[in-house]
Amino acid sequence: MNAQLKEEKVFKDPVHNYVHVQDEIIWSLINTPEFQRLRRIRQLGTSYLTFHGAEHSRFSHSLGVYEITRRIILQFERAGYTDWPRDERLVTLCAALLHDLGHGPFSHSIEQAFQMHHEDWTCKILLGDTEVGAVLRRLGEDFPEKVASVIRKDYPNPIVVNLVSSPLDADRMDYLLRDAYFTGVNYGTIDMDRILRMLRPFQGRIVVKESGMHAVEDYLMSRYQMYWQVYFHPVTRSSEIILRQIFRRAKELYASGHTLAFLPDPLPGLFKRELTVQEYLLLDESLVQAAFMQWRNDKDDLLSDLCTRFIDRKLYKYVEVDSLDKEMIQEIRDAFIKVGLNPVYDLEIDFPTDLPYDVFRPNGEIKDKQILLLDRHDRIREISEVSDIVRSISGLHRGKFHLYYPDNKLSHVMDLLPQDIADIFEQK
Amino acid sequence: MNAQLKEEKVFKDPVHNYVHVQDEIIWSLINTPEFQRLRRIRQLGTSYLTFHGAEHSRFSHSLGVYEITRRIILQFERAGYTDWPRDERLVTLCAALLHDLGHGPFSHSIEQAFQMHHEDWTCKILLGDTEVGAVLRRLGEDFPEKVASVIRKDYPNPIVVNLVSSPLDADRMDYLLRDAYFTGVNYGTIDMDRILRMLRPFQGRIVVKESGMHAVEDYLMSRYQMYWQVYFHPVTRSSEIILRQIFRRAKELYASGHTLAFLPDPLPGLFKRELTVQEYLLLDESLVQAAFMQWRNDKDDLLSDLCTRFIDRKLYKYVEVDSLDKEMIQEIRDAFIKVGLNPVYDLEIDFPTDLPYDVFRPNGEIKDKQILLLDRHDRIREISEVSDIVRSISGLHRGKFHLYYPDNKLSHVMDLLPQDIADIFEQK
Amino acid sequence: MNAQLKEEKVFKDPVHNYVHVQDEIIWSLINTPEFQRLRRIRQLGTSYLTFHGAEHSRFSHSLGVYEITRRIILQFERAGYTDWPRDERLVTLCAALLHDLGHGPFSHSIEQAFQMHHEDWTCKILLGDTEVGAVLRRLGEDFPEKVASVIRKDYPNPIVVNLVSSPLDADRMDYLLRDAYFTGVNYGTIDMDRILRMLRPFQGRIVVKESGMHAVEDYLMSRYQMYWQVYFHPVTRSSEIILRQIFRRAKELYASGHTLAFLPDPLPGLFKRELTVQEYLLLDESLVQAAFMQWRNDKDDLLSDLCTRFIDRKLYKYVEVDSLDKEMIQEIRDAFIKVGLNPVYDLEIDFPTDLPYDVFRPNGEIKDKQILLLDRHDRIREISEVSDIVRSISGLHRGKFHLYYPDNKLSHVMDLLPQDIADIFEQK
Amino acid sequence: MNAQLKEEKVFKDPVHNYVHVQDEIIWSLINTPEFQRLRRIRQLGTSYLTFHGAEHSRFSHSLGVYEITRRIILQFERAGYTDWPRDERLVTLCAALLHDLGHGPFSHSIEQAFQMHHEDWTCKILLGDTEVGAVLRRLGEDFPEKVASVIRKDYPNPIVVNLVSSPLDADRMDYLLRDAYFTGVNYGTIDMDRILRMLRPFQGRIVVKESGMHAVEDYLMSRYQMYWQVYFHPVTRSSEIILRQIFRRAKELYASGHTLAFLPDPLPGLFKRELTVQEYLLLDESLVQAAFMQWRNDKDDLLSDLCTRFIDRKLYKYVEVDSLDKEMIQEIRDAFIKVGLNPVYDLEIDFPTDLPYDVFRPNGEIKDKQILLLDRHDRIREISEVSDIVRSISGLHRGKFHLYYPDNKLSHVMDLLPQDIADIFEQK
Repeated sequence: MNAQLKEEKVFKDPVHNYVHVQDEIIWSLINTPEFQRLRRIRQLGTSYLTFHGAEHSRFSHSLGVYEITRRIILQFERAGYTDWPRDERLVTLCAALLHDLGHGPFSHSIEQAFQMHHEDWTCKILLGDTEVGAVLRRLGEDFPEKVASVIRKDYPNPIVVNLVSSPLDADRMDYLLRDAYFTGVNYGTIDMDRILRMLRPFQGRIVVKESGMHAVEDYLMSRYQMYWQVYFHPVTRSSEIILRQIFRRAKELYASGHTLAFLPDPLPGLFKRELTVQEYLLLDESLVQAAFMQWRNDKDDLLSDLCTRFIDRKLYKYVEVDSLDKEMIQEIRDAFIKVGLNPVYDLEIDFPTDLPYDVFRPNGEIKDKQILLLDRHDRIREISEVSDIVRSISGLHRGKFHLYYPDNKLSHVMDLLPQDIADIFEQK
Repeated sequence: MNAQLKEEKVFKDPVHNYVHVQDEIIWSLINTPEFQRLRRIRQLGTSYLTFHGAEHSRFSHSLGVYEITRRIILQFERAGYTDWPRDERLVTLCAALLHDLGHGPFSHSIEQAFQMHHEDWTCKILLGDTEVGAVLRRLGEDFPEKVASVIRKDYPNPIVVNLVSSPLDADRMDYLLRDAYFTGVNYGTIDMDRILRMLRPFQGRIVVKESGMHAVEDYLMSRYQMYWQVYFHPVTRSSEIILRQIFRRAKELYASGHTLAFLPDPLPGLFKRELTVQEYLLLDESLVQAAFMQWRNDKDDLLSDLCTRFIDRKLYKYVEVDSLDKEMIQEIRDAFIKVGLNPVYDLEIDFPTDLPYDVFRPNGEIKDKQILLLDRHDRIREISEVSDIVRSISGLHRGKFHLYYPDNKLSHVMDLLPQDIADIFEQK
Repeated sequence: MNAQLKEEKVFKDPVHNYVHVQDEIIWSLINTPEFQRLRRIRQLGTSYLTFHGAEHSRFSHSLGVYEITRRIILQFERAGYTDWPRDERLVTLCAALLHDLGHGPFSHSIEQAFQMHHEDWTCKILLGDTEVGAVLRRLGEDFPEKVASVIRKDYPNPIVVNLVSSPLDADRMDYLLRDAYFTGVNYGTIDMDRILRMLRPFQGRIVVKESGMHAVEDYLMSRYQMYWQVYFHPVTRSSEIILRQIFRRAKELYASGHTLAFLPDPLPGLFKRELTVQEYLLLDESLVQAAFMQWRNDKDDLLSDLCTRFIDRKLYKYVEVDSLDKEMIQEIRDAFIKVGLNPVYDLEIDFPTDLPYDVFRPNGEIKDKQILLLDRHDRIREISEVSDIVRSISGLHRGKFHLYYPDNKLSHVMDLLPQDIADIFEQK
Repeated sequence: MNAQLKEEKVFKDPVHNYVHVQDEIIWSLINTPEFQRLRRIRQLGTSYLTFHGAEHSRFSHSLGVYEITRRIILQFERAGYTDWPRDERLVTLCAALLHDLGHGPFSHSIEQAFQMHHEDWTCKILLGDTEVGAVLRRLGEDFPEKVASVIRKDYPNPIVVNLVSSPLDADRMDYLLRDAYFTGVNYGTIDMDRILRMLRPFQGRIVVKESGMHAVEDYLMSRYQMYWQVYFHPVTRSSEIILRQIFRRAKELYASGHTLAFLPDPLPGLFKRELTVQEYLLLDESLVQAAFMQWRNDKDDLLSDLCTRFIDRKLYKYVEVDSLDKEMIQEIRDAFIKVGLNPVYDLEIDFPTDLPYDVFRPNGEIKDKQILLLDRHDRIREISEVSDIVRSISGLHRGKFHLYYPDNKLSHVMDLLPQDIADIFEQK
């Protein structure tokens, strides 16, 4: 029962030029309050504090993922590939559009601080008493569950899951292009048209024609660069640390009975970890920033200081260290305590492996992390078997230890620290 | 006493590639809380509801204006133009960087609702007890006043005012390029390098070499297109109307003693029009959006409805009308009242001349609205004397009457309206 | 009997990203020697002497025109417009691809010098004993004639002619975008996707949805700018003048029995105006430039000088004059003769109206020069009735008188010229 | 005695936006016949037969190399680096501008066929009785020799040589950007501004600040991709093979006393390898293509066939083979002879190591092939010591064996070939 719009609607998009909507259901979904809420959640969290252009929202990214998926399916249909199940078109498009629906404000930090997962919330919103749910149910009572299962990756037709979520999926292609566009770095330019043309549905999954190998190599290199240049930028990490500390401190204070300077709904529910879907949907980055503005005047000095740091962008400084073992870390913490610093808040260490590593790694990964090439004899090979360049980068660990700390506090006690520890922070 | 930074700092910018900072004072100004606050105020207000990419902030625009001004001055210095006063460099750069410092959240709407002017606030912030003021005073006690007078356009050296504020100034060039980039429309692409190379300081003002006439024509046409395609877009106007009505309604309610569902500082001060500089600086778009989220639950149905409309993007519909006279407007208002609608909130009319018309008009304008061409005989002529194309567009009024209204309310009473009025809203 | 290719072929194109070929016939046409010959003829003639990037060929332009036409038809088919005759697809695509097939080397100049018309040659090639003709005949003996009649604009189905040749056709859109790309000027950027989406087949012709008016305005302004910035650039005009003089002089010499230093086939046929189709196809810019290189050593000083000027880019200088009447021109010519110059070769005048004026002019033009808007009530109006901006520019004449002359010759006799005439050339 | 131009001149350039000329000497050099000749020699040889946009000339590339070098030096001067010898500015700029002056038509192929080296010709032109030589001598009798020694890499001041010729030089940066722009592939986009800002003159050579490492990695990856996607494209290789065979056959025929259908100057000198500088300067791609057009009618069938193939783009087909040993090659040749084919002309094999490998390889290379990073302690390290990614790609060989052959000839005798050899060409 899928109606077409009388006339195609378009959104002007800086990355894809236009996003095209032909299905009534997609148009209705975009206009739900739950989808509009994504306008109030930035795609790249605190990255705008490093790259001032990165103020784009998950709303625009979600439209972009939908648009790329639409183009892939259109091409599959036009080419008449029989391995593509045509009646899965709508469930695929809905899953592509809605896959980020459950993201909260400053998603990574808030998830860490409150042990939540945005995929869970996405499914709760799809299945709950929401406008999105109501729109989806127009296509059948079980349709919301179908969309949710694509997102949970347990939909019975694996090619649909593979199209929506794989190392070459529309999500990753859109964020690479979009984040590159809005930050202004030019590492993310990929030949998306070519990659799309090389995709094939084949025996229950999406593969790449072998002649598209170079375009895939280029895509993986772009990802590699974007990770190191943008996503893991130490200034962004520093701002995420401040953010996580604010959440942690506010939660501690709330738990301890302290009356926070400002606590509108649904923040109490968040602190108690008792949010309903309706309350969760009230969370957005405006509320979080407004709370931080008010908490600058909280009686708790630590919370007040952290909020001021975030709002005024007075972030923690950092030093880079090649190696750091457990003993040394303990030594630093002890020294910090000795001079009156609090290592829980005044020191954060990024270990190389702490980072949310999503660069392509074919080995030892579950099946859906592989990129498969299809040669002209219809043989399938994993790309790193064929591409030297992919093999070269896929095993690389990158990154060093980074120590983040409040410069002003540390400088007051620098003379009191043991020389070897002071040297680390003074980078001698 | 202007120190240079030991090493040039850069900001990655999608529009200008890099923004370069060489002066210690500029670096310090960018890092003040007052300047960082501009990150929380969007450059294009509610335009992101029409063009989803338009989420960029006044922070990035301000850096862009500074950067263009820096390039203009660098070029003047390199060419050795004697008409350019070299010792005005820093005051010019500071004025360029800080000219938008006083903008409030959703600036145009809030200014209309509370009769404020952002230029006034800019000057108050420069001259007040602020970090920006403190940084500026490092260059002399009177330096903040100098910068303020450039912004107020009464600085004694008119060429400085002319460089910072003219129809071809860095402000306009940056917003044209930046707004085009972030909305994704391609009407705003101008050959800025060429325009910059054609600028000349000449007898106390900035003029354009005659051979740059075509580039200036193209720039004026780009502006013309951006005004009609982006800035005056009726969907954006509709969202501005909702916004203004929210502010107006909340102010009314506050004045009448109604207890609003949510009223953190500095909102009471705003409603009483008694804001101090420190309070004004607490205003940002996060606070405003957080308030709207809470006011959706206000006991006042009108405020609650308006806030829901804004947050969920359920804007007023509109119809376009070629002509509309006073009598007809009165007739519509009367008919609205008769069927139980409130014409103060349920009807807004955009008159063609109501629009903030800033497209180039040389005639009957004060001197600083002119673009002057310099020919090879050092004769000066106003561009519309020379360019047919500029003359052609400079007299044009464009735009029709637009009537905005709540669709759901109106549709309930459509049958009760006189036929001629119903016809207007049904576009027969 | 139109076969599809087993697998779509693509050409990487800097302007359209990819050119897609699905029909076997199109693929075969591209691979004919006659079409490949277009690689050896530049799209913009001598413009590369002004804009060094403008070295692109008619081959790439022809592919671009084909690709835009393909996209328009695809969209018509997808939207299911019943006014579009689906069985005209192939004849339309062939006409789009082949419309420039008859262009000669440095087309405008050679056509002027030898009174030829490239459309005539296009039709002769289509209909003659050529590989292109043979490929076309695969679709029926009368197919070459059908394609030719579209190009001659007398094809019985007028909507096909209108799609291939109108003020908004694929030819004009491609050259605007392509010439802007290769010259590097940014005046030619248009929102082609939007224009394409706004096109509609309607009652035997192609019209534009009214909501696309601004995009069309922008397109017409881009054309206007490209004409004045690129196509009519005086340096390009100067090189065209040299070129035309070389052709004229060589023809004169040949007619007078002078033995030219170099005269391979098919140059004698060209001079005698007795070229067969096979001979015409031997003409390309390599041959012309090779001849000029050799003619630098011709015994005729004038020919030798002109060829050296062209090859070494020692062009004629020019002065710009606001007004110039017949008497004055005669006076200049007489004065030239008196001091020993030859006004036939040593002076060329560009009159404002001499220029190949192709900017949009709706009035007094034949029907196929109009752009028609379709409003939501299916009413048709010519765009200049609706758009102030189009009305403003459509009546404009631009341009001044330009006098081109050999600087070195003139400077020797400047003192001998009457003062008022010397003043013109010395621009006092 | 270096005069500045009264007014800066600019060239509009699609890659660098504008090329700026301030020095009178540079302006004069650009206007010499020898430099203008570079307009008639394509930057990428026959690549336009694969990528139709790649019709750009060495003229535009040479301007680009000059412009990048100008920007590097400007930045060195502005930063006040004392390791940069300011009085070497002009010799450096001249060497950058003129480094490709000696390229012949279809340079790589003609050099192979006639054992010439373009660097030798560059130096002969600089030092000979040419206009370029005359202009250079205005700066001193020994100035041409100085420029030539920079190009020969034996200039006494090594930092000048290093700036003009190194793995990160202006030449490589320009061709990467320019070739990507004109072919339309997007692998060549690099952040040149950032790389330039990271360059430092340091102890007699140009090094890169360590924080620029990622930008350098990205640049090396772009090069890697451009090599495999564009420069080594098998279709381009096929056209180069045809070209080389034409030159070889014509030379053979000339040596054997055969009268070629067309042989204007300076072709006899070329065949006899007795070209003077003046004759060499007559060689350009117009002449070569005009000759090929005429040779299509030569009495020698082989020459005629090869020329027709080149002109009409009927190139050799190719097959890709993973491995191929000497014995197998001999076997194929023998089999070709047995069936009446000529393995000298009817078979060409590209070995992986035959390719002009210029991708970055730090090991075992001479010093000037290294990219050195400078850390904040002024320590120098070769980039592959620091960058995993560079280390990964620097050892890679890529490429397979490619066998090129005339499809039509081979298909006639396929049945006569031994099965294992036929299988290779039929790719079973």
